Amino acid sequence: MVTPGAAGPGRTAVVGLGLIGGSLARLLAARGVDVVATDVAPATRAAARRAGLDVHDDLASCVAGAGLVVLAVPLRAMAATALEVARHAPESATITDVGSVKGPVRAALAAAGLADRYVGAHPMSGTEHSGFDASDAGLLDGVTWAVAPAAGPEGRTAPAQRLATVLALVTGPCAGRAVVLTDDVHDEAAALVSHVPHVLATQLFNAVAGAPVREVALRLAAGSFRDGTRVALTDPARTEAMVTENAAWVAPALRKVIRDLELVVGALESNGSVHGFFHDADALRGAVRSGPGRAPDGSATDVEEVPLGPDGVTTLLEHCRAGAVVVGLDTTRAVALLAAR
Amino acid sequence: MVTPGAAGPGRTAVVGLGLIGGSLARLLAARGVDVVATDVAPATRAAARRAGLDVHDDLASCVAGAGLVVLAVPLRAMAATALEVARHAPESATITDVGSVKGPVRAALAAAGLADRYVGAHPMSGTEHSGFDASDAGLLDGVTWAVAPAAGPEGRTAPAQRLATVLALVTGPCAGRAVVLTDDVHDEAAALVSHVPHVLATQLFNAVAGAPVREVALRLAAGSFRDGTRVALTDPARTEAMVTENAAWVAPALRKVIRDLELVVGALESNGSVHGFFHDADALRGAVRSGPGRAPDGSATDVEEVPLGPDGVTTLLEHCRAGAVVVGLDTTRAVALLAAR
Repeated sequence: MVTPGAAGPGRTAVVGLGLIGGSLARLLAARGVDVVATDVAPATRAAARRAGLDVHDDLASCVAGAGLVVLAVPLRAMAATALEVARHAPESATITDVGSVKGPVRAALAAAGLADRYVGAHPMSGTEHSGFDASDAGLLDGVTWAVAPAAGPEGRTAPAQRLATVLALVTGPCAGRAVVLTDDVHDEAAALVSHVPHVLATQLFNAVAGAPVREVALRLAAGSFRDGTRVALTDPARTEAMVTENAAWVAPALRKVIRDLELVVGALESNGSVHGFFHDADALRGAVRSGPGRAPDGSATDVEEVPLGPDGVTTLLEHCRAGAVVVGLDTTRAVALLAAR
Repeated sequence: MVTPGAAGPGRTAVVGLGLIGGSLARLLAARGVDVVATDVAPATRAAARRAGLDVHDDLASCVAGAGLVVLAVPLRAMAATALEVARHAPESATITDVGSVKGPVRAALAAAGLADRYVGAHPMSGTEHSGFDASDAGLLDGVTWAVAPAAGPEGRTAPAQRLATVLALVTGPCAGRAVVLTDDVHDEAAALVSHVPHVLATQLFNAVAGAPVREVALRLAAGSFRDGTRVALTDPARTEAMVTENAAWVAPALRKVIRDLELVVGALESNGSVHGFFHDADALRGAVRSGPGRAPDGSATDVEEVPLGPDGVTTLLEHCRAGAVVVGLDTTRAVALLAAR
């Protein structure tokens, strides 16, 4: 039996105050959470203090009293930061992150001896801007997060309580919902809905940059180009890191893009049919137009209660794989509230 | 010397009341233009009448008294519609369109004997919806249009007066700006900023539809996927037609996508560098971020006057090719007002 508030982590420490870390710290502070933060850059710390955040100058003091540590540093800094956190955070602290890949981050955390305490997390939100100055409490308010407990029958299973700690953060002060998944499912899905779109947006942008009709093309650029290249305006170093870190899933997905485009080009060059290409996903197109992924109406029949024991973690993974999403946590009864599609 | 109002076409007839034709008719009516319209579908005509438009039941009576006829029918209906317009519109009427390709439309118009009277036009705006019910006066208010006079020293040159008629429509009641270009420049640029983005969006959408992690991917879909696939929700038949009609330019552009992606995948699979791919267009990225294509500040030094004679058409083509845009028309002095980048 878990008592009220038992899932609460106490103090939350946000390490790294860029776009995502800054936005999370602002949101938690606005919601009355006991949150502290730090960043390696003095100018960023100063800006965060001016924004009213409780900022520590060094990581050691920032994480010293934390029950939950959120790593919001760039991917390339993850391994070194994890080692520092392992040295200075309490043994009881749960470690999570906001990175755009999960497998490589878990490997970095495991190397620092934090495997048992790490629950991966990835808020599905962002903008083409970066840095603390672009951060905003609204950016992460009410968004969907991917949450990855330690997985697999062979691996060590993170206690359900650590998963509950992160689900409480997401569905509580962040007012969001969580898809509970394995690292592999996350990284394959993220390649499809984020990393490959970033690569294609970059290609579109590069193609216009190098085109003889470049100036006209930029003048004519309307919705489809703006949308298709918006993420190409993202800090390219961040995109490069994201794509490189998830190369294991991005590369095969890009191979499929190439195969599909070869068929389209072949048909266009030979007056063949491209009907299938444009209509194969009509069923999903209709479903998306009518609004999948919308919030459920909240009626009791839509929400299933899943007790948060070891079996509960497996149940959440299975149901989320089929499209369900965690919309809340009843800490008094230690159950996750799961909404079907 | 052109007298005030001489560039005005008198009555404007809009043939076809789908998303774009409907939006244009609504906008012109709202701006007090003498506009009539028609559509082959009785239900669409009824809806347009309920929206307050002056709707004719048949094309013949609709175009009979028009000084400017706007063809806003699907690409597949263009040839047949052009023949009907040639039979029923006054000899003096200028013919334009709103199609997403220019070369094939001009060929259809030439086959109907309308080559001398045709000025191609393409408003760079749209939504993923279609049909009159989705039309809205705001959709085409203040947008950039591509405008293509009859081109080339070998071909017959459309009188500058016909170009002026269309520029007057775009920069007058439509409150827009016009890029004057050749069919080829339009179709190459449109492939880059519209047709290829539509193909890539469709591929992204198809890939998720067929993925084993499909349900998770849809749950996690955030900004980059929503943006990258928004146009994949467009009526796929319309997209298919657009891409097929412009196959001459879309196919080589897709070949370049494939070549570029092969390099990226090759690097990802061999731990090679993708730095160049993500950074090659950094200069343009910076320029776009700081706002190219924005309205000029309107000061006198930014706007050049181009007299609208035969040489003027050539001057407009050259300047627009370099990034300039027509922002207005002084009909009393028969000059186009051209803004540099």
